[in-house]
Amino acid sequence: MRTVTWDPEIPSVRMIDQRLLPEELVLIELWSPQEVADAIRQMAVRGAPAIGATAAYGLALAGQLSRAHNAQELWHDLEIAADILRKARPTAVNLSWALDRLLKKAHTAIEEGPQAMRQMLIEEAQRLADEDIEINRRMGQHGASLINDGDTVIHHCNTGALATVDFGTALGVIRTAHEQGKQIHVLVDETRPRLQGARLTAWELDQYGISYEIITDNAAGYFLSRGQVAAVFVGADRVAANGDIANKIGTYMLALAAQDTDVPFYSVVPTSTIDLSISSGEEIPVEERDPTEVLDLKLKGKPIAPKGSHARNPAFDITPNRLVTAFVTEVGVLRPPYREAIARAMKETQTK
Amino acid sequence: MRTVTWDPEIPSVRMIDQRLLPEELVLIELWSPQEVADAIRQMAVRGAPAIGATAAYGLALAGQLSRAHNAQELWHDLEIAADILRKARPTAVNLSWALDRLLKKAHTAIEEGPQAMRQMLIEEAQRLADEDIEINRRMGQHGASLINDGDTVIHHCNTGALATVDFGTALGVIRTAHEQGKQIHVLVDETRPRLQGARLTAWELDQYGISYEIITDNAAGYFLSRGQVAAVFVGADRVAANGDIANKIGTYMLALAAQDTDVPFYSVVPTSTIDLSISSGEEIPVEERDPTEVLDLKLKGKPIAPKGSHARNPAFDITPNRLVTAFVTEVGVLRPPYREAIARAMKETQTK
Repeated sequence: MRTVTWDPEIPSVRMIDQRLLPEELVLIELWSPQEVADAIRQMAVRGAPAIGATAAYGLALAGQLSRAHNAQELWHDLEIAADILRKARPTAVNLSWALDRLLKKAHTAIEEGPQAMRQMLIEEAQRLADEDIEINRRMGQHGASLINDGDTVIHHCNTGALATVDFGTALGVIRTAHEQGKQIHVLVDETRPRLQGARLTAWELDQYGISYEIITDNAAGYFLSRGQVAAVFVGADRVAANGDIANKIGTYMLALAAQDTDVPFYSVVPTSTIDLSISSGEEIPVEERDPTEVLDLKLKGKPIAPKGSHARNPAFDITPNRLVTAFVTEVGVLRPPYREAIARAMKETQTK
Repeated sequence: MRTVTWDPEIPSVRMIDQRLLPEELVLIELWSPQEVADAIRQMAVRGAPAIGATAAYGLALAGQLSRAHNAQELWHDLEIAADILRKARPTAVNLSWALDRLLKKAHTAIEEGPQAMRQMLIEEAQRLADEDIEINRRMGQHGASLINDGDTVIHHCNTGALATVDFGTALGVIRTAHEQGKQIHVLVDETRPRLQGARLTAWELDQYGISYEIITDNAAGYFLSRGQVAAVFVGADRVAANGDIANKIGTYMLALAAQDTDVPFYSVVPTSTIDLSISSGEEIPVEERDPTEVLDLKLKGKPIAPKGSHARNPAFDITPNRLVTAFVTEVGVLRPPYREAIARAMKETQTK
């Protein structure tokens, strides 16, 4: 089951509402680019590759809804819609990458007129979604060799089928190793504040029959220091040209603990998550979200903080490249020095 | 208001039930050493110094309840009660330290008979509780010089009045700096799984009028890396002779982030938390608690994990001495090399 799909009948974008998992598996239909942008902002869908595919469908939807009679008018409407979608979340680069890819494609059809452009947008969004799954499978193959039979690994946030169109990035690597018959145990970082680990990754691992235990994010360092962990796997929301990564808040401290205990730390990313226009992590914008996401939690039916408390809620942090043992991409495993390895990998994807 | 007091009328031990804060401030009365041990185990009271004082009162209560007619019989009953109390929680050394101190005192009165022993236990428990406050005040004075006007500091778990008999250790240092007129802003680690930061530290800071914001434990590294934090303050549950510390789970990763960003990391501990019988942190027993503490949380009324999920719940981790910038104790600020500095400090307290 895909996280996000195109419904040609209505037309609309259909997706799993990830805010209701693991309690309920509910599908929602989005009827306009604005609704798609809202769903991304409110995290009905999250995960860099899933956001990219969703935005692509959102732009295809803009094409369908536009009443433009000629290519110029349609182009204008698409630019407005792309702008709305682009602003939904600032950190994950896949969103912009997907929109740019669709806009570029539509632009090639300007001579052919609005109907050709509309059709091209739908086809390109579908192609992008299909490719996402294929790319995840390839990353899984490249990365599975990093996991041995009997390994316990730590995983942060959710990077599974739900974070992508299907299959997953870091969790895709774990799935592939499991499919190869390796016994794997996953220590699942619960991943505060939104608890994507406890809610979504645990739910996925349940489906796949992979052994796991949930831990608080605080406990990762303890298990690493006890020599009980073979590797740490995370995804990324944006990778700079030098290999610095923006990823879910807490990744930086997890990477520090992995390094301090000599445990390899792997970031599994499609090349669409690499942003060559950004030289280092410091330049990546970090989204600070609504503080209620931190405070909106109950312990035995009681609020976790005094009434009127304030909170801060940065959604991502920057992990410097020196803490990353390797990147797993669809074109292979990249090792330091990263500026060179990343440049080579990006070149390879463009010549394909 | 003291966290734990002796009620001579009943007799009983009276304490704040910290599990109900910040919603309700409820006092509970404990009528037997077994009830005291249960309250410690279930964390109605927590924090190394508070546990120590509570156990001391628990042993004084055992003296009152014992029907022994002679000193030998009473001594036997006290040993049984001390054993029950000692096993309530394994990591914080103050528990054993307080029991040993009371037993030693009672032993000096064996010649005088059971009534003298009973009286001595109550007096010694009271003295220990009074001293705790005085020691915290002294630590506050020593440590406040480490905080400058305008500083933002990160604080993990709860180390305030609630973690002690009154005033606090790490939070006591912050309070003292505040009382000196310094403007301080505290980033309060929520401290999963039991959320002592969000629930208790935020509640205390509210009372003291100290500015604060709650953050997820994951976010500490972000704020440290942005150069927004002047220092990190924590307590400790046990300090080994070499300066390795056992403290609330998450402390190790927080200390790594402080070191990686060149921010000083201070542990504020009474010398009663130092255990010279333990050479290094590896020897400190780490309590693993009930996994439901991790899973028993609700987000918008929904469980945070799939039904049937398992969890792991280590309550403490070990922070190696190399990550500790200094210890603040009642006899002064200790700096590396710690084995020597700690030995000197312990000698000083014994000659006083």
